[in-house]
This record gives sequence, C-alpha cells and structure tokens, in this order.
Amino acid sequence: MTIPAHRIAFGEHLRELRRARGWTSQEAFAHHVGLDRTYISGIERSRRNPTLDIIVKLARGLEVSPSELLSTIEP
Amino acid sequence: MTIPAHRIAFGEHLRELRRARGWTSQEAFAHHVGLDRTYISGIERSRRNPTLDIIVKLARGLEVSPSELLSTIEP
Repeated sequence: MTIPAHRIAFGEHLRELRRARGWTSQEAFAHHVGLDRTYISGIERSRRNPTLDIIVKLARGLEVSPSELLSTIEP
Repeated sequence: MTIPAHRIAFGEHLRELRRARGWTSQEAFAHHVGLDRTYISGIERSRRNPTLDIIVKLARGLEVSPSELLSTIEP
C-alpha cells in the first residue's frame, strides 16, 4: 500500500509538536489525550487515518489549533 | 446525541466554501470530489465525522489547503 503524502506530513508534524511540547513519551501523551498509545504510534507512522474528532482532540492536547496541526499538509 | 461544536464549524465552513466556489449543488460537488451526495450532506449537517483522507480530498476539490478548511474550528 502506498501511504499518501498528507498522512506522512500529518504524522511527522504530530510527532514534532508532541516532542516540542515536552511529551517525550507517546504513552504519557496518549494518556493525556485519552487515546491508546498504539493509536498515537499508528498516526505518527502514517498508518492511521484519524477522524476530525480525533484531530481536534490531538490539537487540544497539544494546545494548538486544529488548523495548525494540518499546516504542513500541501494544498 | 450532542453534536460537538467543531463539527458544526467544519460543516458550515465546508458549505460556505462550496457555494463561494460556485458549487451550488451538493450533487455536482460530490461528483467533482468523488464522494456521495449524502455523505457531503451529512458532513455539512455535522452528522459525519470525516477522516483526514476525506478532509484532504474536500480541500483539494475546493482548492484550499486542508488547514484553511479547519480554520473556523476554535482551538
């Protein structure tokens, strides 16, 4: 399966923002936002296709806007 | 079921952008982006929880960035 570029951009940006905010562990961040660690890992590795509800939850956990979380995806 | 505010913001913004781009019919826009009319309708009425892949598809069909499509959702 070919992974779409937007998923890679989203996953990499999530990982960068998570670490930049001091959440060095996926486990701790997952607990913070109420999701499973394997799910966070799957998004960061571009394997998951998160819904709008999840994108908003992740953005709030990182204290960025949902728009900012998608800002590295090419138009 | 209570509809989350971010879904309402997203659905209303999608409808506004669709009309502003001249897609007055949901049916024509749905065909343009390769989705079903009932699915577009469901998103605009906040009933659907679109995935990242779908958000990107909608944004490209509207010629806006995915980030812009989420710009009306409160942080």
